[in-house]
Amino acid sequence: MSEIPYKIYLSENEIPTAWYNVRADMKNKPAPLLNPGTGEPLKAEDLYPIFCEELSKQEMNNDDQWIDIPGEIVDFYKMYRPSPLVRAYCLEKELDTPAHIYYKFEGNNTSGSHKLNSAIAQAYYAKKQGLKGVTTETGAGQWGTALSMATAYFGLDCQVYMVKVSYEQKPFRREVMRTYGATVTPSPSMSTNVGRKINEEFPGTNGSLGCAISEAVEAATSQEGYRYVLGSVLSQVLLHQSVIGLETKAALDKYGIKADTIIGCAGGGSNLGGLISPFVGQMLRGEADYDIIAVEPASCPSLTRGSYVYDFCDTGRVCPLAKMYTLGSNFMPAPNHAGGLRYHGMSSIVSQLYDDKLIRATSVKQTDVFAAAEKFARVEGILPAPESSHAIKVAIDEALKCKETGEAKNIVFGLTGTGYFDLVAYQKYNDGVMDDYIPTDEEIAKSLAQCPKI
Amino acid sequence: MSEIPYKIYLSENEIPTAWYNVRADMKNKPAPLLNPGTGEPLKAEDLYPIFCEELSKQEMNNDDQWIDIPGEIVDFYKMYRPSPLVRAYCLEKELDTPAHIYYKFEGNNTSGSHKLNSAIAQAYYAKKQGLKGVTTETGAGQWGTALSMATAYFGLDCQVYMVKVSYEQKPFRREVMRTYGATVTPSPSMSTNVGRKINEEFPGTNGSLGCAISEAVEAATSQEGYRYVLGSVLSQVLLHQSVIGLETKAALDKYGIKADTIIGCAGGGSNLGGLISPFVGQMLRGEADYDIIAVEPASCPSLTRGSYVYDFCDTGRVCPLAKMYTLGSNFMPAPNHAGGLRYHGMSSIVSQLYDDKLIRATSVKQTDVFAAAEKFARVEGILPAPESSHAIKVAIDEALKCKETGEAKNIVFGLTGTGYFDLVAYQKYNDGVMDDYIPTDEEIAKSLAQCPKI
Repeated sequence: MSEIPYKIYLSENEIPTAWYNVRADMKNKPAPLLNPGTGEPLKAEDLYPIFCEELSKQEMNNDDQWIDIPGEIVDFYKMYRPSPLVRAYCLEKELDTPAHIYYKFEGNNTSGSHKLNSAIAQAYYAKKQGLKGVTTETGAGQWGTALSMATAYFGLDCQVYMVKVSYEQKPFRREVMRTYGATVTPSPSMSTNVGRKINEEFPGTNGSLGCAISEAVEAATSQEGYRYVLGSVLSQVLLHQSVIGLETKAALDKYGIKADTIIGCAGGGSNLGGLISPFVGQMLRGEADYDIIAVEPASCPSLTRGSYVYDFCDTGRVCPLAKMYTLGSNFMPAPNHAGGLRYHGMSSIVSQLYDDKLIRATSVKQTDVFAAAEKFARVEGILPAPESSHAIKVAIDEALKCKETGEAKNIVFGLTGTGYFDLVAYQKYNDGVMDDYIPTDEEIAKSLAQCPKI
Repeated sequence: MSEIPYKIYLSENEIPTAWYNVRADMKNKPAPLLNPGTGEPLKAEDLYPIFCEELSKQEMNNDDQWIDIPGEIVDFYKMYRPSPLVRAYCLEKELDTPAHIYYKFEGNNTSGSHKLNSAIAQAYYAKKQGLKGVTTETGAGQWGTALSMATAYFGLDCQVYMVKVSYEQKPFRREVMRTYGATVTPSPSMSTNVGRKINEEFPGTNGSLGCAISEAVEAATSQEGYRYVLGSVLSQVLLHQSVIGLETKAALDKYGIKADTIIGCAGGGSNLGGLISPFVGQMLRGEADYDIIAVEPASCPSLTRGSYVYDFCDTGRVCPLAKMYTLGSNFMPAPNHAGGLRYHGMSSIVSQLYDDKLIRATSVKQTDVFAAAEKFARVEGILPAPESSHAIKVAIDEALKCKETGEAKNIVFGLTGTGYFDLVAYQKYNDGVMDDYIPTDEEIAKSLAQCPKI
C-alpha cells in the first residue's frame, strides 16, 4: 500500500479563496470580443445590458492575476468542495502500467458536473446586483441543473430555455430543475419574439441550442431585473473554474507529485481551461513544463480541424463576435452524438493557448470513448459522463504508452462529471448500435465559409 | 464560522477494519430462522445451498462482537469511503432552529446508495468460495446496481432478475447494470420453472418482487457454482452496514459531539440497522442513551401497525421463516408509492430492538416526505432519494420541536442515497398529482391472517 491515499482530500480551509486569472499571465492575450453589428471591440460596459456588471468586468480582465472569491461563494463551495483528487490504483492495475494516474472528480454534487463552480458565482453576482433573476439556455440540461441549484440557494428566479427535443425526451433533468424551483420552457416557445418567429417559419421544429440562446438573451433583455448567464466558453467561466486546477495543484503539491501529462475534455473549454490554468500559468511564467492535452470528439473537432478566426458565438448571431478555433457557427454535429461537447467553437483563452502551442489537442471517436468509459466504470466504480470519458480514453492511451516505454509518468485528468443522465447513450453502446460520425472536409469548409470576414 | 466543518471526513486509515455485530450484545437475541417446511430452527449449514458459507455463518453469529473486514473489501471501501458526515448548516439556518443537524451521506458512489457496502462484502465471499457468480432480484434497481458494481470488481458473473414493469419503465438502472457486465432478465422470465409457471398462469403479468426472488433463488440453486444474495433484511447485511454507524460515531467522537437523536428510514432495515448498531450497542452495554427513531412510510407501516410474528420472507414462500414485525407476506403496498421502502416485513434485529423498546418508530405520508425532500435539496444541494427523505422529514420535525423548546439537540440522520433515478416520482410531486395511500385496518388484518401459525 502506497502512502498516497485513494482519494486526496484537501480540508475545507484549503478551498481556494481567490480565482486564478490566466489572462493576466498570457503574453498573447485573447483577441477582444467585437460588436456583431459594427465590428468594433467591446468594452465591459457594452456587456452590461446582457451580463451582470461584475461578470462583464471579469470577462475583460487582463490585469489581475488573482480575483478574490466572495465568502458566500466559498461557503457554498464547502457543500461539495474540495473535490477529491483520486489516485486510480485500480485502473493502473487493470492496465498494468507503470504510470501513476490521477483524476480530479467533479461529479460529486447533484448537478453531476463541474458546472456548479461557475453557476454559483454567476448567481451570486446577480444577487449582489439586486437582480430578480437570470435566464439561460440548456441542451441536455447539465448547465440548467447547476444554475437552478445556485439560484435556489440565493432565492433568485431562474428561467431556463431547454431545447424542445431534450425537454420532451430527457424529462429527468427537467424535473431536477423544477425541483430546484426553475421555470423550464421548451424552446422554441411562444413567449419570445424569436421563438414565435421560428415556430411560424418551422412549424413542429424540435429546436436547437442556437435558438434557445436567442430566446434566453431576449428574455433577459426584455424583463426588468434580469440578465443572461452562460455555462462555458466565456473567460469569466474559465476564471471560476480555476478552482478545479488550483485544488488539483494543491493536492499534488501536498504529496510532492509533479504532473507530467494533464488531460481534459474540451467542448466550450470550461473544464479544460479551469483544470489547466494554474499549470499553464507556471508555463507562461517559465516555472514548469507540462504536456497538456485537450481532447475533443472526432464529430466536433474545433481545435484539430477548425480555423482560428472571428466567428459568431451563437447560431442566432445576436452575441458578440469572438476570435476562436471554430468549425463555423452553422456547423451541426451529428445528431446521434452522445456527449455534450457539441459546441462549434472554443473558448478564446483555450484557443489562444493552443495557437501559442502551450497545449496540444487530439480527437477521439465516440465508440472508443464509451469503451474507455466502460472499462473505467468497472474498475474505478464511477460511471463517467460521456464528456469526461473523452479524457479517460486519452489518459488510458497515454498510460499504455508508458507501459511500452517503461516510464512512470504522472498522468492527471479531469473527470468532469457522472453519466447518470446519459444512460440512453450507454444503452446504445451496450446494444452495439452506436456509430462514429466524422464530418468530411467539405462539410467543415462549407460551414467555415460562412464566418464573418474580419 | 464554527469549528465544525461542513463535511467531516475521516481519513482512509480510519475506515473501520472490523464490522460490529450487534447480535453479540443483544440480551434478547433475534428469534432463529425456521425451515419453512418443517418449522425447525435452521443452522448455518442449512443455508449453504442458497448462501455462501461465510455469509451463512455471519447470518447466525450471536457470539462475536467484531468481525474483521477482509483487506480487499477495505480497499474497495477506499474508492468511496469514508463517506462524509455533513453538518447541515444551511438547513439549520432555513429552519431557524437551535438544533445541530448532521447527516451521514451514503450517496456519493455510482450505485447511489449504501447498498454497495454489503454488495462488495457478499461478492468478496462468493469469490473467496470459488463461485462463478451470484443471482439476485431487484425492483427499481438500486440493489442490482450495487451488486453489479461489486461483481464487476471481482470478475464474477451477476444475474439479476428485475421486476418486468421496472425493466421496461425504468431502463436507466438496467443500463447501468449492463454497463457493469450484469445480465438483467425481466421477471417473470421463461428461463426458470417458476417464471414459466407464472407466465402460464398470468399471461402478460408485470411481475412482482416476490416472483423475482423465487426466480433468483431457483437460478442460484440450479446452476453449478452460483449462490443467491440479498440486499437487506438479513443479519449479515446489517453487519456489513455497521460501517455506516461506526464511521458516524468516529466522526462525532472526533469533534466531541454527543448525538441526542438518531434517525433512519426503515424498509427492510439495512440502513437503519447499520447506522444505529454501534449506538444501540452502547445502550445495550449501559454506556449511553439515545433517542433512536425508525421512519417508515405510512403506506407500508410494518413496525407501527404490523405484528411481531413468524412470517414468510418472500411472497413465493421458498425462503426461511423469520420472526419479525410484518404486515403479512401478501401485503401489497400501494403501487403509486414512490419510495423503495415497500417490504412487508422488517429485519429480525431491528424488530427485536423495537420490541425491546430500544428504538421507537413513526410513519410519515408520501407528500410530506417529498415536501421535506424539496426543502432539503434547495438548501443543502443534494437531491435525496425518496427513501432517505423519510428520515429528512422526521429530522426536520425534530429540529422544529427544538425551535419551540429552545433545545440545542444534536440530531443525526442517515441520508442513504440520491434521487437521480427517482425523477418520475419527483415529477408527480412537482405536478401536484402525488397522493397518499394509507392501508385500512381491514387490509392489514386480512394480510396478517395469512401468516403461518407458529
